[in-house]
Amino acid sequence: MVYVGVDLGGTNIAVGVVSQAGSILAQAGAKTQAERPFSAIVKDMADVVKRAVQKARLTMDDVQSIGIGIPGVAGEGGVVFNCTNLGWVNMPLRAEMQKYINKPIFIDNDANVAALAESCAGVSVGCKSSVFITLGTGVGGGIVIDGKPWAGGHGRAGEIGHMCLVPDGVPCTCGRNGCVERYCSGTALIRSAKQTCCNYPDTVILSKAGGNVDKINAKMVIDAAKEGDAPALRVFNTFAKYLAMTISNITWFFDPEMIVLGGGISYAGQFLLDAVLPLIPPCQMFEKLPLPRVELARLGNEAGIIGAAMLGR
Amino acid sequence: MVYVGVDLGGTNIAVGVVSQAGSILAQAGAKTQAERPFSAIVKDMADVVKRAVQKARLTMDDVQSIGIGIPGVAGEGGVVFNCTNLGWVNMPLRAEMQKYINKPIFIDNDANVAALAESCAGVSVGCKSSVFITLGTGVGGGIVIDGKPWAGGHGRAGEIGHMCLVPDGVPCTCGRNGCVERYCSGTALIRSAKQTCCNYPDTVILSKAGGNVDKINAKMVIDAAKEGDAPALRVFNTFAKYLAMTISNITWFFDPEMIVLGGGISYAGQFLLDAVLPLIPPCQMFEKLPLPRVELARLGNEAGIIGAAMLGR
Repeated sequence: MVYVGVDLGGTNIAVGVVSQAGSILAQAGAKTQAERPFSAIVKDMADVVKRAVQKARLTMDDVQSIGIGIPGVAGEGGVVFNCTNLGWVNMPLRAEMQKYINKPIFIDNDANVAALAESCAGVSVGCKSSVFITLGTGVGGGIVIDGKPWAGGHGRAGEIGHMCLVPDGVPCTCGRNGCVERYCSGTALIRSAKQTCCNYPDTVILSKAGGNVDKINAKMVIDAAKEGDAPALRVFNTFAKYLAMTISNITWFFDPEMIVLGGGISYAGQFLLDAVLPLIPPCQMFEKLPLPRVELARLGNEAGIIGAAMLGR
Repeated sequence: MVYVGVDLGGTNIAVGVVSQAGSILAQAGAKTQAERPFSAIVKDMADVVKRAVQKARLTMDDVQSIGIGIPGVAGEGGVVFNCTNLGWVNMPLRAEMQKYINKPIFIDNDANVAALAESCAGVSVGCKSSVFITLGTGVGGGIVIDGKPWAGGHGRAGEIGHMCLVPDGVPCTCGRNGCVERYCSGTALIRSAKQTCCNYPDTVILSKAGGNVDKINAKMVIDAAKEGDAPALRVFNTFAKYLAMTISNITWFFDPEMIVLGGGISYAGQFLLDAVLPLIPPCQMFEKLPLPRVELARLGNEAGIIGAAMLGR
């Protein structure tokens, strides 16, 4: 038996047929065209699933279940509670999908799914508990306990990006202030780099952006920091300080066996770990107690498909 | 069968025989005399356990297991990792206790034990997940998942008091800055009240303390706030604001079904809930998703005995 994983994004629908061990056997995809009605998107998803199964030279009888990772909050009974990018509120995704394919269908948030993928086939395999932090445009997260994603009592668990890091800090899109996402995301890195460019017009960041602050992206900031550019290093180290604080807060509350860093910023690789780990503040009370291991995600873009598939394992 | 619970504190050893349903059938106690050697304290604990079982008109054959709640960190294999008040480091508590009583012995941190008690026989009965916050001299916490205490990957889980609430904030005894404990404990309430007394010498707090700032305790601050004294209300509301922020951070990370407030400050009762709940900042992204219920602990001092006993259930 195999499992099908659907990575539903605002731009692409990516589908994979996944083995029991978490390897992708075949893939298919389509554009989401998010402006279309719910029913049209789901019909397309079902078609792409069928295509992926054919490509794997299998039939639907070989498929155990279908898992779908959504960029939003999953509710009870296979309903999508909300999905901002797609404009979905309380949409019966499981029921609609089962009109086309009569299989068990599991739905979860995309960060929870990526967390599960790493724990089934990536860096956190074998951990009793792990927390995954996606450092992308925003900051997301997922908790895995005993090999299962932890959704919490109301489907909100793992929303690390909206924990408060700085009381009365930078205003957040969620209507509150000082959220982790305002300090530890790619967006935060770019905001901070733009400010730095005003004070240090000679920074390598600005030359990478062709002198245009509006062209700065996170990769330019990281690359400039890696090259030793002092203003870029200052920006990156401030980012690292806040990330270390977030890791520390997760450690003292939940103490997972491992914390996994994923998302676009984890492209910085060992350079990111080298900046963050020394900044996790030591605690004299428990100085001899080991800290959770902090590691980089391994599965990259495939995590969305693999983790969704593994929802049914 | 019954369960025995031992609440080991820096001052008292309190032991209870507890029914399957979590009721205390008989109790016995002794002074800890923490300055004594480890072996003497453990021998006394065993004697008090035997006395409690006799008082319940039962024999050791009726006892399923013994649970011990310690003011410290439990390690692997029945060893106490550390216990600051008692000066214990890596002490083989289970093995020492089994010299006197040959029963299964479970050991956990006292806040985890209180959390478990509320979830077995208190306010959070039936919750799939709950987080207990002890608001006392310091701030502790415990997480319960599926009726079991969650110790984390290294025994540190639930150390809510040492999550960072204010970056670069008030120095903490743990060597770091801005910990929750520095803003949400009885100690924090008293510190803040003392400062207020300098600016507002007419405050009811100061009259309750007989004009002596060094006699101020948390109860005086709460009572003055309940009486409507403006400076006391300001102190209490600042405390409530930080507690609301802590509750919010737990909500966005872990999203438990219920958050239980216990410890000395929860004596403030409904007045505390009325101050804290409106200050939990709303989040526009998830405004229709229910929040965890926030409730007051019900078992008071008995939580230590009941929860320790329930470690073996």
